[in-house]
Amino acid sequence: MKTRAAVAFAPNQPLEIVEVDLDGPKAGEVLVEIMATGICHTDAYTLEGKDSEGIFPSILGHEGAGIVREVGPGVTSVAPGDHVIPLYTPECRQCKSCLSGKTNLCTAIRATQGKGLMPDGTTRFSYKGEPIFHYMGCSTFSNFTVLPEIAVAKIRPDAPFDKACYIGCGVTTGVGAVVKTAKVEPGARAIVFGLGGIGLNVIQGLKLVGADQIVGVDINPDREAWGRQFGMTDFVNPKDVSGDLVAHLVALTDGGADYTFDCTGNTDVMRTALEACHRGWGESIIIGVAEAGKEIATRPFQLVTGRVWKGTAFGGAKGRTDVPKIVDWYMNGKIAIDPMITHVLALEDINQAFDLMHEGKSIRSVVVF
Amino acid sequence: MKTRAAVAFAPNQPLEIVEVDLDGPKAGEVLVEIMATGICHTDAYTLEGKDSEGIFPSILGHEGAGIVREVGPGVTSVAPGDHVIPLYTPECRQCKSCLSGKTNLCTAIRATQGKGLMPDGTTRFSYKGEPIFHYMGCSTFSNFTVLPEIAVAKIRPDAPFDKACYIGCGVTTGVGAVVKTAKVEPGARAIVFGLGGIGLNVIQGLKLVGADQIVGVDINPDREAWGRQFGMTDFVNPKDVSGDLVAHLVALTDGGADYTFDCTGNTDVMRTALEACHRGWGESIIIGVAEAGKEIATRPFQLVTGRVWKGTAFGGAKGRTDVPKIVDWYMNGKIAIDPMITHVLALEDINQAFDLMHEGKSIRSVVVF
Repeated sequence: MKTRAAVAFAPNQPLEIVEVDLDGPKAGEVLVEIMATGICHTDAYTLEGKDSEGIFPSILGHEGAGIVREVGPGVTSVAPGDHVIPLYTPECRQCKSCLSGKTNLCTAIRATQGKGLMPDGTTRFSYKGEPIFHYMGCSTFSNFTVLPEIAVAKIRPDAPFDKACYIGCGVTTGVGAVVKTAKVEPGARAIVFGLGGIGLNVIQGLKLVGADQIVGVDINPDREAWGRQFGMTDFVNPKDVSGDLVAHLVALTDGGADYTFDCTGNTDVMRTALEACHRGWGESIIIGVAEAGKEIATRPFQLVTGRVWKGTAFGGAKGRTDVPKIVDWYMNGKIAIDPMITHVLALEDINQAFDLMHEGKSIRSVVVF
Repeated sequence: MKTRAAVAFAPNQPLEIVEVDLDGPKAGEVLVEIMATGICHTDAYTLEGKDSEGIFPSILGHEGAGIVREVGPGVTSVAPGDHVIPLYTPECRQCKSCLSGKTNLCTAIRATQGKGLMPDGTTRFSYKGEPIFHYMGCSTFSNFTVLPEIAVAKIRPDAPFDKACYIGCGVTTGVGAVVKTAKVEPGARAIVFGLGGIGLNVIQGLKLVGADQIVGVDINPDREAWGRQFGMTDFVNPKDVSGDLVAHLVALTDGGADYTFDCTGNTDVMRTALEACHRGWGESIIIGVAEAGKEIATRPFQLVTGRVWKGTAFGGAKGRTDVPKIVDWYMNGKIAIDPMITHVLALEDINQAFDLMHEGKSIRSVVVF
């Protein structure tokens, strides 16, 4: 079949809207009509050539929502007509990782997904006879895409696509980091570094679990109002702090935070986040994706005196199990999404979404097909 | 009163055995007759001037056992005749840290202890009228010493001093890192870097909790027999590994260890220990004390993909609560100490203990008064 898609033919070039060829689903695969997709920093990261494993030409996008239109042989967990969210972190429920009960990082299709291929080692997309690679196993910048069955979460049909798509990455990553990875308890004090599309979701996750103090840190003063809208209690702009930022944050949180979250991808900020933790028990969770080659560092004394350094991918959420629950949380009003969707665009205007992101003007842009 | 002590008058000089003056216990303090003391790498670290907070002249030693001989006003938890282990990590049971239930790092007397002083800001030791500083709140290289009441653990009277003293640091640090900090579960795979006095105790802690695979790593081939004696199942000498040590260890542990422990204090080894952890859930615990100014580093991707970086001090044990239980474990045969005490010396020969340690000839030397 043919489908419209925004194709990344090469790094650092605008996406091109073209009609590509799409093969139907093979065994264990499903064809999904993408109804809406968010544009995330990770897409920009790859498009800018910062991801050493980035592959071109490819169809980016990993934060979508849509409808199953066709299933391949052997598919049992979803059927045509089901509403789904594509999962860049699949959940096979059979690999060592899934069965461990300790991680969401399913390894069933990791090798091929990292190479832009479906599990059988081929691509479903092509353009003028040449293969176009998949991206993060999702490629939601295409109106239709093919996914492994284990990489779709079936969600309730009344959830609006243009909001639910955000649960495919940003919402789950931020809220999950609080609920699943850090397991923040009521009464905790927390600091969130970077109040973009992830950081605001961390903030609303902290509010959800009953944190007492939610400090937001950002060098963009416009983000203070955004943070307060979702539950932030204190705002710190590092540019306004004279002296040591760690000392300032430790004083503000009565000895250091119980939990800190890096949502910047900046390795210097990651260090600050760790060192702003409370001695004895503070945990710092890295969410942001750092540039290739960048390293984090600290004195080991920081850990020996009880701070813990962790990270999270997709908020520690198991896609098929947890994503439908987070959709329920949204539909039941436990978390907000609507105000974070600042821009809605047509596919033809997708490159504007990257500009808005880089200019700090959007929290989240969504393309509606 | 007068007491014999090994005094560190200056860094990088042999300890001198002299008779020093000791004031009696003030309010909340106890006078303890030290019956035996271990000599630990941390003593050497300070003596060699590597600890930027090291103070001279001082009486080193922090791994002792003895008998309470006198108590100051207000002391209620111990009485003359009680057998005790001095605690460099006290347990006041009233500070924010003690009450958190999340850490053993009591802060009640941290400020003065770090300056070599008793909580009232003075020293009890002096020599020729000049103050001699306390060390880690213990100064067990003196036949008699004065300690805050909150810094002694009362133990059963039938435990032999020349073995129980090792519970004052090495045993508790190693076994506690497994039991208290990492909370290793039965069936786990673990890697221990550095098979000295701490590493061997980590190994026996892992055996105690039922770990399936216990890999020991050391560049000293003589340590293989030592490791196996306490439960090590595999030995790796990095000098014998061609190629990448992390890859070798990951293969040996079927994808990486569930838990790794650094007992070397070498920041490069700390990185190897983290990266040898299993993707998704492996936890690395730093036990060793690094040289001043040294930093640990890794790619944040290691944490984002589920590895956890932690540290431990005194094995996460609460001194007054947990140390008596570990003494019971030793007396009941759940853990071994006797074979690790490789050398027993008189106070006059204490400098030999440092030589034996540096030459790798001893696991633990103990001075008996």
